[in-house]
This record gives sequence, C-alpha cells and structure tokens, in this order.
Amino acid sequence: MSPLRGGVAEVSDALLERLRAECAVHTAPDALATASRDWWPLAMVWDDDGTAITPAAAVAAPTSPEQVAAVARCCHEARVPLTVAAGRSGVCGASMPVHGGVLLDLTGLDGIVAVDDESLVLDVRAGTFGTPLEEALRAEHGVTLGHWPQSIDLSTVGGWLACRSAGQLSTRYGKIEDMVLGLDVVLADGRTVHTGGAPRAAVGPDLTQLFVGSEGILGIITGARLRVHPAPSAEVRAAFRFATFAAGLDACRRVLRRGATPAVLRLYDGIEADRHFGTGADGGEGDAILLVLDEGDAALVDAVLRVVHEECAGATAADPALLDAWLEKRNDVSALHHYIEQGAVVDTLELAATWSALPAVYDGVLAALRVFDDLLVASAHLSHAYTDGACLYFTFGGFPPKDQREDFYRRTWDAALEATVTHGAALSHHHGIGLNRARYARAALGTGLDVLAATKAALDPHGILNPGKLGLRSPWGDPAWP
Amino acid sequence: MSPLRGGVAEVSDALLERLRAECAVHTAPDALATASRDWWPLAMVWDDDGTAITPAAAVAAPTSPEQVAAVARCCHEARVPLTVAAGRSGVCGASMPVHGGVLLDLTGLDGIVAVDDESLVLDVRAGTFGTPLEEALRAEHGVTLGHWPQSIDLSTVGGWLACRSAGQLSTRYGKIEDMVLGLDVVLADGRTVHTGGAPRAAVGPDLTQLFVGSEGILGIITGARLRVHPAPSAEVRAAFRFATFAAGLDACRRVLRRGATPAVLRLYDGIEADRHFGTGADGGEGDAILLVLDEGDAALVDAVLRVVHEECAGATAADPALLDAWLEKRNDVSALHHYIEQGAVVDTLELAATWSALPAVYDGVLAALRVFDDLLVASAHLSHAYTDGACLYFTFGGFPPKDQREDFYRRTWDAALEATVTHGAALSHHHGIGLNRARYARAALGTGLDVLAATKAALDPHGILNPGKLGLRSPWGDPAWP
Repeated sequence: MSPLRGGVAEVSDALLERLRAECAVHTAPDALATASRDWWPLAMVWDDDGTAITPAAAVAAPTSPEQVAAVARCCHEARVPLTVAAGRSGVCGASMPVHGGVLLDLTGLDGIVAVDDESLVLDVRAGTFGTPLEEALRAEHGVTLGHWPQSIDLSTVGGWLACRSAGQLSTRYGKIEDMVLGLDVVLADGRTVHTGGAPRAAVGPDLTQLFVGSEGILGIITGARLRVHPAPSAEVRAAFRFATFAAGLDACRRVLRRGATPAVLRLYDGIEADRHFGTGADGGEGDAILLVLDEGDAALVDAVLRVVHEECAGATAADPALLDAWLEKRNDVSALHHYIEQGAVVDTLELAATWSALPAVYDGVLAALRVFDDLLVASAHLSHAYTDGACLYFTFGGFPPKDQREDFYRRTWDAALEATVTHGAALSHHHGIGLNRARYARAALGTGLDVLAATKAALDPHGILNPGKLGLRSPWGDPAWP
Repeated sequence: MSPLRGGVAEVSDALLERLRAECAVHTAPDALATASRDWWPLAMVWDDDGTAITPAAAVAAPTSPEQVAAVARCCHEARVPLTVAAGRSGVCGASMPVHGGVLLDLTGLDGIVAVDDESLVLDVRAGTFGTPLEEALRAEHGVTLGHWPQSIDLSTVGGWLACRSAGQLSTRYGKIEDMVLGLDVVLADGRTVHTGGAPRAAVGPDLTQLFVGSEGILGIITGARLRVHPAPSAEVRAAFRFATFAAGLDACRRVLRRGATPAVLRLYDGIEADRHFGTGADGGEGDAILLVLDEGDAALVDAVLRVVHEECAGATAADPALLDAWLEKRNDVSALHHYIEQGAVVDTLELAATWSALPAVYDGVLAALRVFDDLLVASAHLSHAYTDGACLYFTFGGFPPKDQREDFYRRTWDAALEATVTHGAALSHHHGIGLNRARYARAALGTGLDVLAATKAALDPHGILNPGKLGLRSPWGDPAWP
C-alpha cells in the first residue's frame, strides 16, 4: 500500500488518445515509476523498502509551448491531475504525482531561444538543464547566468523558477526571483500568459512573482527571460577561522551591512568544518570556517575583499585553498544517495531568519534534533547572506533500524520544523515545501495560505495542477503525506 | 457632470453609523472634496475648470489595523466601494474614489513600530510619511531607508508599496519591492494577512509581491517590514557631458553591465540639460548631461566611481557642482502645479525598456508627441538604470485653449502610450497606472489582465476595493475614465 494517502484519479483511454494526438505519451511501467519520483530522501527510503508509490498513469512529453497548452486543456476538461516535472532533482516530493494522473515532462522543451547581448537578457525554454545552459552562455556569448544551485547538473530553468531556487553565488548574482524579467506560463485551462518583459514595471502587481515559487500549482512555466552578466574577469578568495560559529555569523552580518556582496560567503560550524576540511582536533569539532569568494569586475571585487578582510580582522586567516576543496565537490549530490543506500536516514533543512534571530534558530533547531538518542549527526552552515539575515543549512541523520526509517524521518523533521517556526524562521530558504514540509504551511503562512488557496481556485478551478501539495486541499483527498 | 463615467454607489445612513462606531468619519463637503483627489494633472485641470468630480460619501480615518479591518468588513457587507488613500501624491488618479463610497484615509495609522538595529529591519505603519520617517531613522538609529521618491514630503510608506515606488537612489538601495520583507494586509472582508518576515523564503509564491503594486485593489496595506542600511559614511560625485543622448545611454549601460551600482545615474537629454543647467548654446539644446552620485561605504563607492570614470572616458568631464542644483530641487513638486495654474497642460511619463530597445523608445515616444503642432515641449532623461535596461522619464506639455485642455491631454497621452507599447516598453516604471493609463492595461498585460482580474475576484468577491482602476471591470460601471 502506498504511504501516500489520498485517492488516485481515473485516467480514461479517451484522454490518453487525445494526449497522444498532441505529443509523445509514455505509459510503460518503468517509465512511469521513474518519472514519478524525485530526490526526496524519504521517497528513496520507500524505494529501497520496495514500498510502492502511486505512479502517474501517463507521462506526456511535449516539445513546444503549444503542446503544453493542449495537454493542459485536455486534463482540465477531463479533470485529471497534471503534475509538472523536469529534472526531478527536488528534495521535497514536489513533483511526485501523488494522485496519479498525467505527469508533464518538460525536459523536451529545452534550449536557448535568444540572447540579447546588449541588454544582457536570455530567453530560454523551461526544460533547459543548468550545466549545458551555462556552458552555452559562456562559449557563445561570453556571459554567465551566475546561477549555481548544487543541483545544476540535474535541474532545469523551469524547476528553478517553480521552486524558488537560490544558487551558491547568489549574494552577487541574486536568487532566481531577482534574475527573472518575465515568464511564459500556461494556465490550467490551456490559456497562455506572458508576464513582465521590461527591466521594471509598475503596472499592477508583478505577475511574474505570482508564478515564481508556485511549485506547479498555479500554472506551467514554459519559458523565461533571465538577466545574465558578463563572464567574470576577476576572482578573489579568502578563508578565515572563527573560535565560535556565533562570531562567524556576526562577521558575515557586518560584511553585508556595509554593502559588500561577495558571491560566496559560507560559514561552517565546527562539526561541518571538521567533516569537510579535517580541521578539528583529533577528529572532533573544530573552529568555524568561513569561505569567501567573489568574482566579477576587478575594481569591485577588490573593494568587496577589502571590506571582508576588515570585518574578519578578529579571526584567524585560513588557507584560501580550502575553497578548492569546496569548489571541487560543490555540485556532487551523490553522497546523500550513497548514505541512504547504506541504510542511513539523512536529510538537509535550509531555512532563513533575521540576524537577530539566527543564533537562537541555530541553537534551537540543533537542540530539537539532539533530543533523539538515535540521531548521529546534526550540524549546519550559513550558505546565503543578506543585509537582514541569512540562510542556515542543517544536515541531520542517523542509522535507525530498517523498519523504523520513516518514523525516524518523521520525528526528526517534525522537531526541526517546530523549532524553525517557533523561532520565527522561514520554513524553507530554497528547497521549497512540496510534500515534506506541507503540513507546516499553515503554521508558516497563517491566513496567507487562504490567499494562496483562493488564488489557486481562481486560476485552476478544477484543481488539476499538482494537487496535494503546499498544504492545500486536493479534490482527490488530502493530505497526501500528512 | 463629472467627466468620470460609471455609477455612484449608495451609502446608507446605517453604514455611516456603523463606521462611526469604529473610527473617526468625516462627511463635510470640503473634507470630502479634498480627500477625493490626488496629483493627477488632469484632475487639476478639472479642478481649475470647476468641473465636479465624484467625491467619496465619507472619509473613514482609522488609527489602528483593527479599525481598518472593521471598516473593510462594514463596506464588504454593505457592498460599498472602499478606496484607500494616504498622501494622495499619486499622479494617475489611482486614489480617486470614482464611484463614491468610502475613502479610507490611512494617514492616522502612522509611526515606527520597531527597528531591529542588528538585522537592519524597520517595522512601520503604512500611513507614515517619508520625510519624518527618514529623519527619525537617521536621528534615532543611524540608518537610512534609502528610498527617495520625488514625492517624499507628500507620500507614505503604504502608498510607495501600493504603487511600486522607486526612489532617486534606487540603483544602490533598490526599489520598494526590493526593500520589503513582509506586509500586514487587510483583505476586503476584513481578514488580516501577514506576509513574509524572513530575509528570503521558498514557501510558495511570495505573497508580499502580490500586494506590492496592487494599487488598493487586492488588499489594504496597513504595515510593512522594510530593510534599512547604515547611514552612508562616504559620498562620491561626478558629472559628464555627452555629444548625444544615445552616447550617454550607452555609457550608463556599460557602467551597470560591469556590476557597478551608483545610487544616482541621471542622464538628461540636450533639452532637459539646458532647461535645468542652462548648458545649451544661446538657450538651445545642449549636450546630454550625466549626473552620478554614490553613497555608502568608502571602499565600495570609490570602486564604483572608478568604473564610472572608465566607462565615461569618451565623454567630457563636467562640474560635479551640477549635482548641487539637482539635489536642491529634486523633491520640489510645486513647478507642475504652478504651470497648470498658468493654464498649461503638462505631465510626465516614465517607462522602462531594455537597453537594446531604449534608443527606439526614446525616438518613438518623442516623435509620437511631436506630431501635435500645439505641443510646446517634449524631452526626457534617464532616471533609473539596471543591467538590462533603464527608465526614461519624459516631460511633455503645451498651452492649449482652456476649453481644449482635456482633449490635448488625452491625445498626447494616447500617442505617447501607443508608442510605449509598440516599442515594447513597460507602460509605467514607477508611477503606476491608476485611471490615466488604465485603458492601456490590456495592451500592456495581455492575458495577464485576466490573471489579475481572477485574483481580484477571488480576494475581493464584491469588488469593493478601489473599483474602476487598473483596467478591471467595476461593479458600478466601467471604465471610469476610458
């Protein structure tokens, strides 16, 4: 029996026939099983257990926005769930078709449409993967998007936009919502909307931002205009050791406060510093370590580095070669999968809070996790910083008995998310909420969840788009994973 | 007869009585007339003509968010228009209660709630005016909001947010949507929503941005959390002359492209350069003039100025004292009123477009205006710049016969907006669209207008919030000013 509650939609042969007239449709069981899961660690556990998870009844693979619109129209008229996916690198189950129905695979809708070199604007299809995109931008236009999520090899432009992705160099280049000028969106009923398009506008609310982060529930992003930048001509690096994580946090705060925006400002707590760099005494907890990297115009990045050195004057300089170790492994996501195959239950929680709240958030989340005797690791690093606060990225896990893995996963996540909400942090910084954090959507959004639900009902009256997610009611029964 | 078409709502004595039980309510004709207009130049012409414009039936003046919620609930239940206003410095008629009903004056809901000095976050009530806010932030906390709209003496935090305000130093400090972490919003039916609150979140779409720029149609902003910055410790200035406006545009483009973000980068075309600085030969058109100012941390602003000088190497250095002339008059909005009192019809149109489109936009809008023999002036300056484009701010006007002023206003605006849309520019950069540009909302937004209408219907089912604006249907007949 599927661990995902909620009903499974019926998909008629007539609908499949209509879909096949529009685009490629796959129904082979292997293809359905593969297309119906993402990188949610709990789903990996279920997979390892041989626990069946509701698959889609069909995978539709359009190669044009017009085909996407046609598929949406068919599903809307048939009132069948339509779940959008592409790289399926999400870690919260957001692209799992929990009520079956049709899975829309956008990876065939890929490629650069145009680059306006003068205006530094990229027009790109949603299914384009990160690494080939960045390579083409550099090779053919001498520009960079500057968006480096850890998943860059596995994830697509549309996924970044739908899940509010933030890359590793976001302090200089911004997060995905800062990069986007406009979107092409197909609504549930097949209508197409083009949002934005100018550097800035005051023509009602910014409709682009209504779809950024909507995780497939409000519309289907088929294309985007994104800001790019000249490929960097200079790079600067630095590394520092701090006696405490709190002292490192405060240095990061002071750097941002002065207006400096180093592309990378990563502060590891003592546990993670030792894990990644072997800097602890006798394998134990070491100093906190701060990695700094900036890239861009020489005049500007030199000035940024000067600010960083001034604000880190109280710390011990460390070897900037530590950056090499991080850069080498920064997009390697195989470790997680490896540990899970070994029987571990391990996951990461990224959240954001203001600087004044961060020390308590750090202590609070770790303390909440450490009440469990079977927890083996709980640690964190700062991964993204702002003038007003930062993102803390926690890693936690253990080796519970095989039949208790879901229980372990559930209680550790509950504890961590309770502490997150209690201490006033955002429920997610850049992973989204999907299925895994949906049960805390009300606690996080309050009556904002009603605003989201009303907007969803207005744009998708039959509720076909990615039902069962984000803590919203589903026509096929809810919650999917309570 | 009012030049504003559309019906006038009935307001019962019973409703007035209910409102009076909640907060101060004004019904004196003078108070109603004053509260029912803003700085829309055409409304000033009507005023000068003695043309009556539909006033609100009552002004409700709450002093707490709870009172705002109560007023909304009353109007929602009575199905009476509720138009939010505060400083009424808008120039598009957005806060005019075109169907009568209740005008919600938020200027009594003012003051700083708190400043988190460590996180650089301001919590402020929506009715707070700009100048006292900035003064208090500097004097009591040593910080600046960095938001300097020309209207700063006349406008409020809530107005900035509702109309997507952009200040004169926005290239360093961002526009209002970049400054806001979260909002308190009262919905049409009186429910309260608190959005955001963390430096960043990936918990569904950013609901804060749904209300920013909504011009009072989706909800009533009663409070906001805004990012502030340390008061600047250094300032740098420069000025340059360019032989052509196009050459100056390209220099601005190159500065932004390198990642430099000088707070001020204002490029005047030859006509405006002569008007403001008397730099033309024999009172005629002069060189284009670029004013540059940055403020903040010394290391960073010095680096920015170096980039500016390098990219302006082909221009002639001008006297940085030109900045003094601009700084002295930059918030003086009396000139417009003065000209209108003299019988002139004069207005400004700000738009935004990508760099590759800008030269054609500049030429196209000016050419469209100059077909009119009775046009006396049409000129522009660049006021805000981005990596991908910029805002052009046009000024145009003439002295038509008194009885033809509305006709002159209408045809010049039509011509300018047609050219704006035709050349792919945004209909407004930071003034919003209100009544004046509403007839072009469909041309600007396409099916996005349907998305906005659906969202409006979901959040405000009786359509009471600021009806007749943004090109949406009004329950009391539309369009208000076609």
